Amino acid sequence: MSYAQNVTLATPFADTLVAVREALAGQGFGIVSEVDIAATLKNKLGVEIQPQIILGACRPDFAQQALAVEASIGLLLPCNVVVRSAGDTTIVEMIDPAMLVDVTGNAGLAGIAGEVGSHLAAAMDVLRAGA
Amino acid sequence: MSYAQNVTLATPFADTLVAVREALAGQGFGIVSEVDIAATLKNKLGVEIQPQIILGACRPDFAQQALAVEASIGLLLPCNVVVRSAGDTTIVEMIDPAMLVDVTGNAGLAGIAGEVGSHLAAAMDVLRAGA
Repeated sequence: MSYAQNVTLATPFADTLVAVREALAGQGFGIVSEVDIAATLKNKLGVEIQPQIILGACRPDFAQQALAVEASIGLLLPCNVVVRSAGDTTIVEMIDPAMLVDVTGNAGLAGIAGEVGSHLAAAMDVLRAGA
Repeated sequence: MSYAQNVTLATPFADTLVAVREALAGQGFGIVSEVDIAATLKNKLGVEIQPQIILGACRPDFAQQALAVEASIGLLLPCNVVVRSAGDTTIVEMIDPAMLVDVTGNAGLAGIAGEVGSHLAAAMDVLRAGA
């Protein structure tokens, strides 16, 4: 199962994070959650990893539609976007919403997943074009 | 694919949310994200739904292990726990971490997913016992 699309950029982590937020906003996504994985592992375990943040991207219109089709879909929302350092580069990964259909087995989500996936792909294109 | 375990409780939403947080903490999970779906839909779309919140539950020790096995696993973290009103009852749903193995196709995650799943199941048992 494919579950991600990604791009590797030469821009620093902090700058990339700003660009990702802008690219997602440009496609109508709000950021409804944010998990700083590196800070969590440092604080809780004393373990150092390279900067890594999970952004939870949400298009409320599609979320509403998805909830109407699959009552438990909140278990797979919001759409995660990971920004992480890898040496001199920064990797941006976005979940493939087709995963929602595969995991739930609910074909009624296919249209919504396709539309959300198109908007995430458009945000990825903006990031690639800006690289 | 099974992706959730759930319990329906007679306790009100707010009380249930407190009990869920306590049950998860009892199994070592920190809440690293929280999305109030009902508030988001109300604020962004003017749509009213029954109270529903997504809690992102994280065991940093298992998260660290998972990242070592699957670099992109942040796309599927943290483990979502949904608490939502349904008439006079409150439904609690927790993601089945076996989903991580199915979605990634990485059998190296099976042991971790099994352990995390056991801890989530134990939290569910506490909620059922308290109902």
